Amino acid sequence: MSERLRGEDAWLHDALARFAPGPGVRLGPGHDCAALDVEGGTVVTTTDVLVDGVHFELEACGAARAARKALAVNLSDLAAAAAHPAGFVVGAVLPRPPSRALFDELMGGFAAAAEELACPCLGGDTNAADGPLVLAVTVLGRPGPAGVVSRAGARPGDELSVTGPLGGSRAGRHLTFRPRVAEALALARAGVPHAMMDLSDGLGRDLPRLCRLSGVGATVDLEAVPVHPDARAQEGRSRLDAALGDGEDFELLVAHAPLDAERRAGLRAEGVTLVRIGHVRAGEGVRVRAGDVERRLEPFGWDHLEGEAGGPGGGSRA
Amino acid sequence: MSERLRGEDAWLHDALARFAPGPGVRLGPGHDCAALDVEGGTVVTTTDVLVDGVHFELEACGAARAARKALAVNLSDLAAAAAHPAGFVVGAVLPRPPSRALFDELMGGFAAAAEELACPCLGGDTNAADGPLVLAVTVLGRPGPAGVVSRAGARPGDELSVTGPLGGSRAGRHLTFRPRVAEALALARAGVPHAMMDLSDGLGRDLPRLCRLSGVGATVDLEAVPVHPDARAQEGRSRLDAALGDGEDFELLVAHAPLDAERRAGLRAEGVTLVRIGHVRAGEGVRVRAGDVERRLEPFGWDHLEGEAGGPGGGSRA
Repeated sequence: MSERLRGEDAWLHDALARFAPGPGVRLGPGHDCAALDVEGGTVVTTTDVLVDGVHFELEACGAARAARKALAVNLSDLAAAAAHPAGFVVGAVLPRPPSRALFDELMGGFAAAAEELACPCLGGDTNAADGPLVLAVTVLGRPGPAGVVSRAGARPGDELSVTGPLGGSRAGRHLTFRPRVAEALALARAGVPHAMMDLSDGLGRDLPRLCRLSGVGATVDLEAVPVHPDARAQEGRSRLDAALGDGEDFELLVAHAPLDAERRAGLRAEGVTLVRIGHVRAGEGVRVRAGDVERRLEPFGWDHLEGEAGGPGGGSRA
Repeated sequence: MSERLRGEDAWLHDALARFAPGPGVRLGPGHDCAALDVEGGTVVTTTDVLVDGVHFELEACGAARAARKALAVNLSDLAAAAAHPAGFVVGAVLPRPPSRALFDELMGGFAAAAEELACPCLGGDTNAADGPLVLAVTVLGRPGPAGVVSRAGARPGDELSVTGPLGGSRAGRHLTFRPRVAEALALARAGVPHAMMDLSDGLGRDLPRLCRLSGVGATVDLEAVPVHPDARAQEGRSRLDAALGDGEDFELLVAHAPLDAERRAGLRAEGVTLVRIGHVRAGEGVRVRAGDVERRLEPFGWDHLEGEAGGPGGGSRA
């Protein structure tokens, strides 16, 4: 399978083959979260590292907003597992010489974010080095009402839905988005998700990952993809391309059995809107459909190691 | 109390006051590990961030040894809590452009370290940025036979002991040391530790932290401090100064009730040697004694934010 993977995905696929599974590891690498059995319980965990100049622009946004984003992106991963936030640890590398004002703004930002997002700080580690500000956050969580939801579990015949419009997040939403924790827990209470992930690298790159882990294929109805007003057409890319490829949407992608009107209404009453964008089918790979034209979608979107990798392929332009 | 703190300690003291305690947080910031109640159990966690040029020299040591150190320093913190390793997550920032060879050597190093140190990898996150290699590891653990041991709990009358000789670690040991997990668990099984921490920043800086968290003072018998053969005298600093200030010893500092010969023999049979270096007393602050001369020790050792901070004071030269 490895020859079909590119960039980050290929690197990780090969690397992960080297790691032996451990005792009590209920869910290991490759998902949004890991899950570990401890003393008659399970803890869910996830980590994300954010770097100035890559994930935020410190000068423009300030340290407090960078701190909030560092916690929020992890909580978005936790939401994908439909887990309750329990606490976080943070490792920070400050540019040298370290500034007390920067440190205080960071810590104030983490303290405010901990309160706003209901996830207490458990501790951390601070260093200084010749380089950009680095914020490494690890969140711990408690399994929600449906246990630990993962990227595996999507079944042929499932619908594919997202919790909100996609594209253009870097215009500002990536710093202010609310991780879909409450929505995920409501979905779990209702027994909806077969598989779930958060859209951090763009639907065009993330959906193939969910399909791979679930051992299924998917078809996306391009006319149904909700495009955010912030999504911008540019350099030969349409607004739909932006919705599929910009990344950092931090909406949930959910594979679930078809829902009747009553269940949809029940979810809406809990503040969850599911926008249907396609379906799961047997086989592998992602296809996109617009009108009568259906084509294969090559994975694209944000690649953390190669940057903007791949084009949108023919599909999203159909 | 804050006016007596310097550098990193002062920054953190002020910052931590801003964080509200969370539900289920059994042990929060300020200790080697945090502990969190989950579903009828407790999970222990700790995080450390390592940076090329600060904690290791990538060109000299190679990525695999850097990866091993990143896991081992976290397991040393876990040992301080006398907890069992359960798993780890890793966040890596690779220098741009990211090298596949570097990535593979790193992952191979983490896989080998996971096996050697009996702590499986749960997942991670990889990015690239214009800066040095950053490795952020978070370890999860299960409480050991004495529950979660912390830096608080030292009592007047306790002996202070270390598990091995100090100083000169950067000559090589910092890359190859074995975290004292087995020793910590043996100590916990024997009910020995009242308080414990790992010596990462040097006894001269770490012991005051343990005293602060325990609300006690301590006196160190300088002639009893075991000095490692690698400890070097230089620039007006003695080998003893190196033992107190070099840092990265990754030995355990243990406060415990006085042990009779039989209990010491029992510990030795389990591979644990405790070298007595002083005692805990009521009050605050650390004093050092050599022969009839006793003086106050100003905190010194490695400061992650200010670098080599403070001198050894008069004490260690007496």
